[in-house]
Amino acid sequence: MTSLNKILTLYQSHFDALCFPPEPGNLYEAIRYFLAAGGKRIRPVLCLLGNDLFGDIQEDTFHAGNAIELYHNYSLVHDDIMDRSPLRRGRTTLHIKYNTPTAILAGDVLLINAFSHINNIREEYREKIYSLFTATALQICEGQQMDLDFEETDVELIGYPDYLRMVTLKTSVLLAASIKIGAIIGGATAQEQAYIYDFGKNIGIAFQMQDDYLDAFGDPAKTGKQPGGDILENKKTALLIKALEMSNTAERKALRSAMLKEGDEKIASVLNIYKACKVEEWAINTTAKYTEMAFNCLSMIDIPTKRKDNLITLTDHLLVRQS
Amino acid sequence: MTSLNKILTLYQSHFDALCFPPEPGNLYEAIRYFLAAGGKRIRPVLCLLGNDLFGDIQEDTFHAGNAIELYHNYSLVHDDIMDRSPLRRGRTTLHIKYNTPTAILAGDVLLINAFSHINNIREEYREKIYSLFTATALQICEGQQMDLDFEETDVELIGYPDYLRMVTLKTSVLLAASIKIGAIIGGATAQEQAYIYDFGKNIGIAFQMQDDYLDAFGDPAKTGKQPGGDILENKKTALLIKALEMSNTAERKALRSAMLKEGDEKIASVLNIYKACKVEEWAINTTAKYTEMAFNCLSMIDIPTKRKDNLITLTDHLLVRQS
Repeated sequence: MTSLNKILTLYQSHFDALCFPPEPGNLYEAIRYFLAAGGKRIRPVLCLLGNDLFGDIQEDTFHAGNAIELYHNYSLVHDDIMDRSPLRRGRTTLHIKYNTPTAILAGDVLLINAFSHINNIREEYREKIYSLFTATALQICEGQQMDLDFEETDVELIGYPDYLRMVTLKTSVLLAASIKIGAIIGGATAQEQAYIYDFGKNIGIAFQMQDDYLDAFGDPAKTGKQPGGDILENKKTALLIKALEMSNTAERKALRSAMLKEGDEKIASVLNIYKACKVEEWAINTTAKYTEMAFNCLSMIDIPTKRKDNLITLTDHLLVRQS
Repeated sequence: MTSLNKILTLYQSHFDALCFPPEPGNLYEAIRYFLAAGGKRIRPVLCLLGNDLFGDIQEDTFHAGNAIELYHNYSLVHDDIMDRSPLRRGRTTLHIKYNTPTAILAGDVLLINAFSHINNIREEYREKIYSLFTATALQICEGQQMDLDFEETDVELIGYPDYLRMVTLKTSVLLAASIKIGAIIGGATAQEQAYIYDFGKNIGIAFQMQDDYLDAFGDPAKTGKQPGGDILENKKTALLIKALEMSNTAERKALRSAMLKEGDEKIASVLNIYKACKVEEWAINTTAKYTEMAFNCLSMIDIPTKRKDNLITLTDHLLVRQS
C-alpha cells in the first residue's frame, strides 16, 4: 500500500511524461495549452486507488489512468464548445484561445490518444477494460446530450429522476469506471468490482448534489466563490428541479416570479423559497444518503480497513461528509 | 474469392444491421439521419478486398470494416462543422439539420463506436490492427489541421510538398490502412502488407489529384457537375499551387488577377492560365504516375492475377486510368 500523496505525485509525473508531436503546431500547441492548466487528476487517482485496494499498483493502471485522464480532458474541451464556456480552470477555453475547428480536432486527438493508451494494457484484462471504457464513454455522450436537451426544456417538465439519470451518465459513471478499472487490474473479484463501481457511482452523485448545494448555500470563505451563480443563470440544478416539485402552489408561483428577477434580490428571493419548501434540507439529506450508500458499498468489500484509508481520505477531501 | 458485387452487397447488409439505442432521441436520430444518406462504403470494401486477396473473407474483416466506415462518418460529421459545409451527400449537413453541439456529440459517438468494433476482432491480430487504426486516426486529424492552416495561408506560401503531405494524411492513409487491415486478417506477410499499404496510399493521392483535375477540366456530361467550383472559391488545390510554381512572371500575375474575378469569366481566365503553364498536362501525368506506382505495388504481390481482379475493377471505377 502506497500513501495518497505518493500516489498523487506518482501519477502526476506519469501524466507529465506524455509527449505529443511538434507538428502540426496549431493542433498540438492547443493540446499542450489545455493540458498545462492542470486539473486535480481525480479520475486517474481513483483508478490507482482502485488497484491499491486489492494489491500493488501495476504499470497497467498508469496506462489506464492516462486513458481516463485524456478522455476526461477531451470531454472538457468538447463540452466547453457546446456550452460556449469562456473559462476553464481559470484560463481562456480552447475554442476561444484558438478557434472552434482546432478545439474540435484537439478533443478528437485527445479521445483517440485515450484509446491508444488502453492498447498498452496487458492482454489479460485489456478486452474487459476496453469494453467498460467504451461503454462508459458512450454513456457520457448520452448524459451530455440529455444536458443539452434540458437547456431547451421548461424546468417544470424535467422530472427529478431524469435529472438524476443525466448526472449519473454525465458525471458518475466515469468516476465509477475509473475505480473499477483499477480494481480489475488489482485483482478484485467480480463481486468486489461491482461494489467498487457502485461506490464510485454514489460518490459521483453525492459530489454533484453537494456542488449544487454549495453554489446556493456555500460559505464563500470556504468555497472561495460568491454563492448564487446557478440561481442567477436559472440553471436547472437538483435544487431548482426539486424545489418546483416540493413547493406548494404559492411557493411555486413565488419561485417562478423570483426567477425573473436579477442580481442579489433574485438570489435572496430564490434562497428564501428553497428554505421555505425545505429543499435546502433535502439537498443536505440527499448528499448524505448517497455518501452513506457509497460507504456501505465500500464496507461490503472484505479487505483490511487500513487498505481503504487512502480512498476514504480522498473522498473526505472531495465531500464534506454529512454523516 | 467472392465477386465484387457480392462483396459490396454483403458489406452493405452488415453495415445496415448496425443498431443504435433509441435514447437520447436527439443524439441517435441525428446519427441515423447521417448514416441513412448512404455513401459508397469504399473504405470497408477496400478492407474486404484486402482480405480477399490473401484468403477467404473472415468475420473479423466485417468488424474492421464497420470500425473504418464509422470512423469515416465521424470524420465527415466533424469536418462539415469545421468547414461550415451546408450539404453532404445531397442532404443538409448534421450541424445545420440539428445543431453544432449535437453534431459534435454525434461525431464523438461514431468515433467511440468505431473503436468498440475493433474490440470485436480476434485477439490474434487485434493489437496490431488497433495500433494501425489509432495511428491512422491521428494522422487524419493532423491532415485536417494542415488543411485548416492552409485556409489561413496565402496560397503562394504553400509548397506542393506540403500540399502532398496534407492530402496524404487527410485522405490517403485511411484508404491505405483499410486495405492493409483486410490484408492482415487475410494472412498477408509483412512484406505483402507493406506493398498493399503503398498501393492504397498511391491510389488515394491519384484519386485526390483526379478530383482536383476533374473539378477544373471535367466533362459535365461525365462528372454530373459544372466544372470550376474550386476555381470560383480560390480553393487551394494541387492545380492552383502547382500553377503558381510552374508559371512564368506574366502568367503568375495574370493568375493572381484572374483569381479576383467572378463567375464564368473567372473560370475561363484561370483555365487558360492552367493550360498555358501546362498544369493541366502536369495533373494528368501526376495522376497517371501515382496510379502506376499503385499498380506497381500490387504487381509485387505474388498471388494469382485473378485474385487481384476485384481490386483492379474497383480502382478502375474510382480512377479513370491514364495509363
